[in-house]
This record gives sequence, structure tokens and C-alpha cells, in this order.
Amino acid sequence: MNGPTMRHRLLLPALAYALIAAGATPACADEGMWMPSQLPDIAGQMKAAGFEGRPEALSELAQPPMNAVVKVGGGSGAFVSADGLVLTNHHVAFGVIQYNSTSGRDLIADGFVAADRAAELPANPDYRVLVTTGFERITDRVLAAAGGKRGRAYFDAVDAAGKTAVAECEQAPAQRCSIANMYYGSDFYLVRQLELRDIRLVYAPPGSIGNYGGEVDNFMWPRHSGDFTLLRAYVGPDGRPADHSPGNVPFKPPAHLQMSTRNVKQGDYAMLAGYPGITFRHRMASEFAGQVEWQLPSRIALYRRMIEVIERAGASDAEARVRYASQLRGLLNGLKRAQGELDGLRRSDAVSVRRADETAMLAWLDGRADADAIRADIAAAQAVLDEVAATRDRDQLVAQILRQTQLLRAAVTVQRLALERDKPGAERESGYQQRDEALIEGQLRQVQRRYAPSVEQALLTDLVLQYLTLPADQHLPEFDAVFGTSPEQVRASVGALYAGTALGDEEVRVAAMQADRDALAASQDPLLRAAARLMPALLRLEDAFKTHEGELLRLRPAYMRALTGFREANGQAVYPDANSTLRVSYGRISTLDPRDGVRYRPLTTVQGIVEKHTGEEPFDAPRPLLEAIARGDFGSTAEPSLDTQTVNFMTNLDTTGGNSGSPVLDAEGRLIGLNFDSNWEAVSASWMYDPRYKRAIHVDMRYLRWLMSKVYPAPHLLEEMRLPAE
Amino acid sequence: MNGPTMRHRLLLPALAYALIAAGATPACADEGMWMPSQLPDIAGQMKAAGFEGRPEALSELAQPPMNAVVKVGGGSGAFVSADGLVLTNHHVAFGVIQYNSTSGRDLIADGFVAADRAAELPANPDYRVLVTTGFERITDRVLAAAGGKRGRAYFDAVDAAGKTAVAECEQAPAQRCSIANMYYGSDFYLVRQLELRDIRLVYAPPGSIGNYGGEVDNFMWPRHSGDFTLLRAYVGPDGRPADHSPGNVPFKPPAHLQMSTRNVKQGDYAMLAGYPGITFRHRMASEFAGQVEWQLPSRIALYRRMIEVIERAGASDAEARVRYASQLRGLLNGLKRAQGELDGLRRSDAVSVRRADETAMLAWLDGRADADAIRADIAAAQAVLDEVAATRDRDQLVAQILRQTQLLRAAVTVQRLALERDKPGAERESGYQQRDEALIEGQLRQVQRRYAPSVEQALLTDLVLQYLTLPADQHLPEFDAVFGTSPEQVRASVGALYAGTALGDEEVRVAAMQADRDALAASQDPLLRAAARLMPALLRLEDAFKTHEGELLRLRPAYMRALTGFREANGQAVYPDANSTLRVSYGRISTLDPRDGVRYRPLTTVQGIVEKHTGEEPFDAPRPLLEAIARGDFGSTAEPSLDTQTVNFMTNLDTTGGNSGSPVLDAEGRLIGLNFDSNWEAVSASWMYDPRYKRAIHVDMRYLRWLMSKVYPAPHLLEEMRLPAE
Repeated sequence: MNGPTMRHRLLLPALAYALIAAGATPACADEGMWMPSQLPDIAGQMKAAGFEGRPEALSELAQPPMNAVVKVGGGSGAFVSADGLVLTNHHVAFGVIQYNSTSGRDLIADGFVAADRAAELPANPDYRVLVTTGFERITDRVLAAAGGKRGRAYFDAVDAAGKTAVAECEQAPAQRCSIANMYYGSDFYLVRQLELRDIRLVYAPPGSIGNYGGEVDNFMWPRHSGDFTLLRAYVGPDGRPADHSPGNVPFKPPAHLQMSTRNVKQGDYAMLAGYPGITFRHRMASEFAGQVEWQLPSRIALYRRMIEVIERAGASDAEARVRYASQLRGLLNGLKRAQGELDGLRRSDAVSVRRADETAMLAWLDGRADADAIRADIAAAQAVLDEVAATRDRDQLVAQILRQTQLLRAAVTVQRLALERDKPGAERESGYQQRDEALIEGQLRQVQRRYAPSVEQALLTDLVLQYLTLPADQHLPEFDAVFGTSPEQVRASVGALYAGTALGDEEVRVAAMQADRDALAASQDPLLRAAARLMPALLRLEDAFKTHEGELLRLRPAYMRALTGFREANGQAVYPDANSTLRVSYGRISTLDPRDGVRYRPLTTVQGIVEKHTGEEPFDAPRPLLEAIARGDFGSTAEPSLDTQTVNFMTNLDTTGGNSGSPVLDAEGRLIGLNFDSNWEAVSASWMYDPRYKRAIHVDMRYLRWLMSKVYPAPHLLEEMRLPAE
Repeated sequence: MNGPTMRHRLLLPALAYALIAAGATPACADEGMWMPSQLPDIAGQMKAAGFEGRPEALSELAQPPMNAVVKVGGGSGAFVSADGLVLTNHHVAFGVIQYNSTSGRDLIADGFVAADRAAELPANPDYRVLVTTGFERITDRVLAAAGGKRGRAYFDAVDAAGKTAVAECEQAPAQRCSIANMYYGSDFYLVRQLELRDIRLVYAPPGSIGNYGGEVDNFMWPRHSGDFTLLRAYVGPDGRPADHSPGNVPFKPPAHLQMSTRNVKQGDYAMLAGYPGITFRHRMASEFAGQVEWQLPSRIALYRRMIEVIERAGASDAEARVRYASQLRGLLNGLKRAQGELDGLRRSDAVSVRRADETAMLAWLDGRADADAIRADIAAAQAVLDEVAATRDRDQLVAQILRQTQLLRAAVTVQRLALERDKPGAERESGYQQRDEALIEGQLRQVQRRYAPSVEQALLTDLVLQYLTLPADQHLPEFDAVFGTSPEQVRASVGALYAGTALGDEEVRVAAMQADRDALAASQDPLLRAAARLMPALLRLEDAFKTHEGELLRLRPAYMRALTGFREANGQAVYPDANSTLRVSYGRISTLDPRDGVRYRPLTTVQGIVEKHTGEEPFDAPRPLLEAIARGDFGSTAEPSLDTQTVNFMTNLDTTGGNSGSPVLDAEGRLIGLNFDSNWEAVSASWMYDPRYKRAIHVDMRYLRWLMSKVYPAPHLLEEMRLPAE
């Protein structure tokens, strides 16, 4: 499934917007994650694809229907009733369902239908629904102090200006603000969002419907998942966002989408709105090559090795296996994604395609007045990328040492927090500010459920042994001092760190976090001392990272100018790479020919649920569903041409992670589907949209209506959504 | 792939024709493995399907084109030139290719093109091509002495009559004869075949073309295999079959098939002739239930357990792993087939379908004059089946004890041969006759390559431990005496058998085989003595088996009469279940919807070879092939609608194991394909033809022509087959 957007944390947290890439590409058939404001510019192609509305009506994000599209948890969603019902994916709302499950009431297994509003269950307090209310270009303001600066200074100037703008903006009550970097530093926008904080669970199918097929079917077509959940947003009696309270009332959204009661079929126009997380479509050709030739192969090798180490270390320890199950699942998923992305980029010959495109773009520059300036900036950006590449093996290993360990990471976090506490509030690093401390404490406590000393020692030892084999000029003196420079020393030093540390105790970790700087400096805990000794190296890497990022923020706009000009010269509009802001894609319900001799049909039916059913997870369709299928009582929700109930459908819509829960609309703007996944062949679409392979997978709203009508009935909710009872 | 027909040996060899089942079914769309003589009866349905020739012309197996279709090795094939070129599968001719490979000349890897006739390589001496020349109904003769008899006596009478007829028939030089049992004992035919003994290798593609996809793709669609080889049959200068000799000359077949130069497409008529091995379509409903409810689940459990035992016992012994690789592969393949068959029979709801059909048949009997007699025979047959079922768990274990061990089986074979040698020639059991002794010696010698004491002991121990858990009334006193009745005794006795035996030595085994009865009786070798003690039990089981088979031979014809009558009343012709005799199927080039949301297209292209290519076996397409694909130089062999070269195609033709190498003809009788496999969804077709899922997989003759023209050129052979040079 499209996971909630993953924040890519490299080493230590840095400004999110500096890490989130954004650029522009050729708009080949149905490609594009368009800013709503761009839609009038591409009205012609939308109409040609079959859109029957006015693109202008979609361009205003504070007007219907765009203001019905929301950010939910880590994904997307939409208001679907006048009383604040929010439709999103089961997997996006999974935390809410889990939060309300107890040993006596397993909502994950059984699903949930709130009989009335009083029965609706409050979400975990940090769960949010965000309604975008403003999107203001503030490029000049963000870049004002950056002019003439370079590297780290450029980065810091942009960072500071952004922080100031956000802080100012958040003076307004219940307004959450953020900076969106468009076209790789070319433009900056201030995004305003209404933050709804009292969210309640209204309707969830059983997990064996909502996640039918589980990990086995993940990324796969054909698919048979009812991956949806209905939530409701509540506000205070005054109509303003409020924390959960029994006296709160349903939020009256400015707009909501109407679910369609019409049939859909292959070739139909479809469009989708949501918050895609991150794409790399407009990266430089050399970055495409780096991804295919180094990043993905090396990640695959590294993840495989970590998986082996964890499995071996946990082989004879059942409890350790339980504690590392989630980390292992994450690594396996990362491995699968990396392999899929690599296969896809090779299949699409992405490096050659991008390189040819870039070569044509550079040739097009010839004779233009700004050609030399642009070429100089591109060459300088390439030099930065080359410098980054020189230590990429080391940096990847150091990042994993901090990401995959629990106790060492905790020690580093504690030491870093102590450093940041000494700074004035505004200068504290993102992620280590006053408001982050509760989150940090929670993470330190959670270590308990995810840590086994034998596994962490094995993993850390293996990662440091890999680091040992790097050329001498990549070594970090602080790492060498802490871990030693021979395999024997590494094993001995890691053993000593874990034999002597008391951080395995939850209260000791939390106490270390709360200790003042002197007390921490006096600690004899070997892991805390090791973290302190490593800290200068980590800060140096962070500084290098910000210096590089600053230079790229300064230099990439030249590349984007060239690309945009080149595209325009070819009559093509350019959309920015995804960056978790509201975007619109359009296309159609489509077959897929995944490989020679095979055609995937675009609509699946309940027949597939029966075919896949084994009675065992993840193919354990619940009895009421199987019985309803056997009865064949599909009513108005059946697809007449198939004479049965559809389940999922597939489009060529342009999506990425973060688009989970995006509403899919027909040519007239009615809600026909709910996006929840992409196909395996399209894992590489974050880098390149290949129209032969890029598909998105949606819950057919007729399946939702049938489940709510005939299988786990909720007639009051159908009525609220102005849908027929059956 | 459709393996060469597997002789099902239960316990000890019995008459092949008594084991080969044959019956009749409803002829639903394109179902049927028709005897050529039946084709005029179904002329209407063949014409309706698109056949443009005269079905009468196909009904004479001594006339063209049927006399061009031959039995090759364990599969089928066809003459494709006037000079005796035989086309069959790479996997059917694999033994010939292997036989001619040496460390310096790896024809499996490199393929082979004979530059001229002098360069053609002789096959292994036991390799045969058989041309069916006669098919004579001799039911009265076979059953003459059986009348009035029952059980074992009925079996022996049929057996003796068949043996006499075969012996008489084989007086003619180079004539190989056999008895074919049609419709489960209703009819017996004497089959005459011309036995060609000098077969030579002419053209084989590299194994990475002939077996592209290997075990991974086995049973799978889409497929991309060039699974073909050309052989040539030679005869003595006098034109009569002869052993290999340099002075032999190419055989001039009575007819040969002409390869088509036309295109083929979805929906085109197709038909196929060959030697399908065995099907169970017309078995009784209770036998369907036994297969689904007991046989397949118990086989799956037993095979899994044996696989585990062999893997565990060989875990720390690399040499043992090599020795058991082939046995393990056989078990894994058997497990996969059993699981596929079970899945398929369940998917087709085969038990219910067959039961409803049988119920309707029995109801149709009402009021007919012979109804009571038929019902009485069916009831009696059911009683026999019930009796067989009462000890089926034990019998399956005993069969595996003999099948999966090497040394114990060798000891039993030696003892049995000694018993049979005492009988007059005609009374000796099939498989233990004078003419079988060379084969037996070869098998005893081969044990050396397939045996490791630790693995065999572990396997035998585990099988006997399973036997121990059976109810007391299934125990065999001889087995209890040899192995003991407690787990400790079993372990101790198996250990002692293998600690003391000298049969692990090849020469000792062969000497034991050649010893006279007294010397053998005096042997103190513990395994030979154990085999002697087990022998009475094994002979008892064999006698019970023949008694049951005799009764079923006597009783099943009543069931077949009812079924045939019932079908005829519904206007349906009936074909006999497959029994390795020449049959014809017809149908068309077809898509397959294997599961909800997926459609398989019926033609694959070279694009799929490139997609699957990994450079590692079994997806290691050879460089000349990849280069030729990249050049795109397909000439007259390309499919115009796809603008590329096709590789394989799929039809709904009715096939089973033994049909490997069957020629596929178009509506006018031209050779368009070479059958080589079925799809995974059709593994259960040996019991039930489900038109939704039954497909056969063929090499497109255009791919063969392209390979022979552009990739591994053999212009002289194309010319001999009267085909264009490119």
C-alpha cells in the first residue's frame, strides 16, 4: 500500500522542506501531479481525456471540491457528508482502530460500526485531519536573506526565514503552517491548514476485508481489498478546532464529495486529489544513474545483510524474534521496494531516457542569453553531487547505525537533546525543540518493546565491520576511537558497551533525557559516553549535509529553469515534483499488460475473494462476506456487464506514497473510488512515470456501498451520505 | 512439462494394461481424446469448430496424416520430412542430447546442429521411435477364458490371454505389440508398432532455449521455451528396422507432416495427435471423492514428510545431498503436482459435479431392462473399492518403502527375481522375465549414484514409524517381525540392517542377483534376509491387488455401459480414458482467465524472453538469441499483428502426460505447433476437463523456423522440410 509519507531522516533531523525534493517533467499521456492552480493551464488535455467539468473550478483549493480533500494521519482523505464524515483508507486509519481495540474488543479483527454518533470512538489524541485553507507564494521573503550566500549559510538563511514565517502564521488559532519548496528551491509557498484534533472512528470493516491479502497482495494486482474506513471530525461547540471532548459537535466542512451511484468501466475518465509525498522525476540524469547504479543495489545488499544478521541473532530466541518482528518487516518491505524500483527503472531504461532528455535540454540552451549562467550552475550542482557521492557508502552505513539500533540511537538522542537545550528556542534544531520533548520521551520508552541486547550487538557489530572495510579517507576518527580499527577490537568494544550500559532500563533512559548537562557529562554509562564521543563526527556530517543541501537549493533552480523552458518550447506544461502538498492527477480506468502474454483487467470482482480465500490470514475472508457473496444479492451496487459485485479497480492515475486515501472522481466530479495502492510494476514511478506500467489501485465505491448495505449494514450512514439503502 | 508417461508401479510390477485406466465422459466444448476411428462420428462438431478437412481422413492410423505421428522415447512426435526427420520436444529427446554430451562437448548447454547426415549423432541404444501400424479389436479373444471367473482368476485369464496375443504378434520382425484396455475392461485392442532402433540427433537448440524457464516456468503461462529437437530415424540398407550401424540409411516414413508458413491467431482451429498416458475422467464418483478427500491430501502430507527427512538427513553431508538431488526433485515435483491437482479439483468442484452426473446416470437407468444387472455390478465394484480403501494408508506406506529406498528395494528385487526364475518363462511376472534381467542389473548398478546410508536409514525409519501408528488390523506380521513394534525397536532394527549389509557394494548387489536360489538362501546379509522375510507379505499384497484389479476389470464395464448409454441418450459421443494409445484432440487457440482480474493472451513473443532474462539459469537466454532479438530481424516468421516474433502459443486442446511432442495442426492439417506442456490450472485435468481452465502449451513453429533460419542456422534442414530459408 502507499504507506503514509515516510520522512526521510538522514543522520539527524533536518528541515523537512530541505529534504523534500520538487521539480518538473514532460507531461506524457496522463502523467502529472498538478498543483490545482495549474489546472486551467492544462484544461485542453483534461478535456481531451474526458473531463466534463471546468478545470477552473478545481483550481481553487479553498473552494469545492478541493476543500473537501484533506490530509489524514499520514495519508489523504475527503469529507463525504455535511456532518464531517471523512473517508480514508483502513490502513491510514489503522492506528485509530488499533487504539480503540482491547483484549475484549478486537476492532482490528471484527471491524466496527458506530450505531449512532454517541457510539463513535475517539482517535488517539495525536491523530489529525488537516484542511488546506491557504497556499501563498512567499519566495521573495524566504530567499531575501539568502542572496549572495552559499552552502551552509544559504541553507541557514532559507531555514531561518521559513521558521519565522511559520511561527508568525501559527499565531492564528488552530492554524498549522508549513513551507512547501516547489521546483527544487525555485519557489517557496506558505501552506495554511486548519487542524482538526477531535477525530472519531465511525465505520471500519474487519481487517480481513480492509487488509484482505495483507503483505502477500501488497503492491499486487489483481487486488480484492476493502481498504476504507469512515472517521468523523469534531469541533468545539463554537465551531472551532478543539481537543477531544464529549461536548464537541460534528465539524461542518466547507464542502464534501458526493459518492456516485453510477457504474464505471474500462476507459472511463478518472481523476484524483491528495497529498503525494515525494517524487524525484526532475532530478538530474547523474542522480538517476546514481540511483540505479549505486543507491538501489547497495541498499539491497545492505538490507539483505541486516535481515540475515537479525534472523541469525534471533534464531534461538523467541522473545527477540517478537521484538524485532516490526523492524524486520520494515527491512523486508524496504528490500522489496528497492528491488521493485530497480527492476522498474531498468525495465523503463530510465537512466538512458533521462540522459537523452537532459542532453536535448542542454542543446536547446545553445544561443540563449542565460545559457552560460545556467550551465555554470548545473556544473556546480554536479560538483556538489560528486562530493556527496565520494562518501556515500560511509554516510549510508552511519545512517543505518543510528536508524537500526535502539539503544545506541537512544544514547545519541539524549546527548543531542542536551546540546540543543543550551541554545535559544529559535535556534534549536528541528526535532529537538521544547515541543518535541514529549515525542522523544515516548520514543525512548518504546525502545523497551523493540530491543534485545544480543540482536542489537550483532547488528551494530556487523554494520561497524562493514564500515571498517571502507577506504581510510572515509573513516571518522571518533568512530575509530569508539569502535576500534580491527574486527577483534570492534567485537570487544561493542561487547563492552552493551555489557556495561544501563540504558536497557526504560527509567534509566528517561532519567538520562531529563538530566541536566553536567549530570549527563558525569555519567559513566559506556553507551552515553560513546554517544558523546561520536557526537562531533555526527555534527560534522550534519554540517556537511546542510552545506550540500544549501548549495543544491541555490543551484538547482537553474536546472529547473532550463527544463521548464525546454518543456514550454515543446508545448508541455511542467508540474513540480511531489512534496506532500495538494495535487491533482487525471487519467482513466485502464488495463495493464505487466509482461509478455499477460493482461490485467481493470476491475476485480468478489469472485476473486472466493478464489483467494484459504481461511488463513491474510486470505481469511470473514464468513458474513463469503455468505453474502454466495447469496449473490448485490442489488444496485452490482456491475451489470459482469453480473456481479466489483471490488477494486485500476487507473493510470499518477500517484505516490501519501496518496493513500485520495478520493477518485469521475468526469463530473462524483466520488467513484478510494486510492489505496500502486502496482508492483510502478514502484519505480517515484523516479519515472512509464505510461506502460504506472497504475493506481482503488476501492470501488460500489463495494463500499454493498458492504455497508448488505454485509455489515450501516443504513444511517448511507442515508447521511445520501446513498440508496441497497 | 508433460513428463514422459510414468508407469505407475504399485508394489511389484503388474501388467501395464491392468493398471492403465480407460473410460468415457460427456463431450463438453472441445473436450476429448478421441480414438482416430471415432472421428467420423464427431465430424459435425469438428467442422463446427473450424476443421476444414475430412474427419474420415484422420480415422485411419495407417494412412496419412496419422501414420506420420509417432511415439518417441516417453512422449510423442511426428515425421516432418520424407527422409525420416522426427520432430519432438527437447525434453523428450533430452536423454539423447545428454548421451552425446561429454566434458569437452556440452550439447545440453550449447545445442547441436548436424552439418550434414554424416555428422548426425547416434542416440542411446535403447531409444526408440514407434510407428503404430495396426489397432485390432480382440476383446473376445482376451476375455474368452475369463468368462465365469472372478477376482484373481479373472485377472490371470485376461493377463495370460494378453501375453499370448502379444507373444504371437511379436513373431513378426521389428514389430512391437501391446494390449490396450479401452473403457475399463470393456474392450481390448492389439496394438502393432514398427520399432525403429537407430535414432540420431540432428538439431537441438541450447538448453537455455529448449528449457528456458526450467522448473520455475514448468506448468506456467506465459511461456517462452523453444522446447523442440529434431531426430532422424535410420533403418538397415534393406529398409527394415535395425540396430545402429554406420551403414544404415534414413527411414522413408509412410507419410510426414508439412510445417505451415502461415500465421496463427487467437480463435484459430487447432488439433493435436499423440499418445496421452493416463486419465481418470470416467472413474466413479466415489473415486473422485477418494482422490480429493484422501489420496491427494495424504500424498501431500507424506511427500512433505519425506522431503523433510531427506533434507534433514543430508543437511551436513554435501555428497549425500548430491546423491539424493534427483529423488528430492522427484518428490518436490510430485508434491507440486499433487497440490495443483487438489487445488484444481476443488476449484472445479469436481466431486460434486461428478456425483451429480453419476446420480443422473443412475436415474436414467430406471426402467431399462439391464438396470438391475448394471446396478448390481456397480455395487459390487464399489464394494471392491471400499475393500481397497480399508488398507490404503498401509498400502501407500509399503509402496513408498519400496519406491523411495535404494538398498532395501535392491534386496527385494533380488529375492523376487530368484523366485520368478523358478517359473516357466510364460508364467514369470512381467518385469522379472529373462528379457528384463539386463534392465534389472543396470538398476542395481545405478544404486551407487543415488544412495547414502544415513539418508536411507532416516527415510526408512520414518516410514516404518508411520506404519507403526496404523491400526493393528492393518499390520503385516512379516513387517512387524523384521522391524519390531515399538519406535525403539524400529530404530534398532533399521540400524542393524544397514550396519550389517554388504549391498552398499555394487559388485555384491550384482553377484546376489546372479546367485542361484540356494546360494541366496544361504546368504547371511541382513538386508537380503529381511527382504526374504518380507516377501510373503509383499506377495500377499500383490495377490490382493490383482484380485481387486480382476474384479474391477470384470465389473467396471457395467458402469461404462451405463455411462455410454446415458451420454448417447444426450446426444454425446464418448471417448475412452487415455491409455498411451494414439488419440486426437481438437479445439482452438485460446486465452485463459486463470483468476479474477487476469487474462492470459494466447501468443507470447520474444519480448518475454528479454523480460525474463536474468543471465542466470533457468533464465539465461544465450547471447546469439538476445542479439537476434535486438536486431529484430524476423523475416517471414514474424507475426504481423504483433510486429515481432512469437514464441509459444496456447490452445484449449485436451492433453495429458505423454502428449509431450504431439504435433499441433491447423484446420487444413498443416503443422503449426509442437505441444510441450499444460498450464498449472489444468493439472487436475487428468480427472476432469474444466473448459475454463484446461489449456495446452505449444512451441510456435514460426519460432522454430526463425531459430533455424536466423539464430542457429540450419538452411539444409529448412530445405529438407521444404521451408523458406528465412
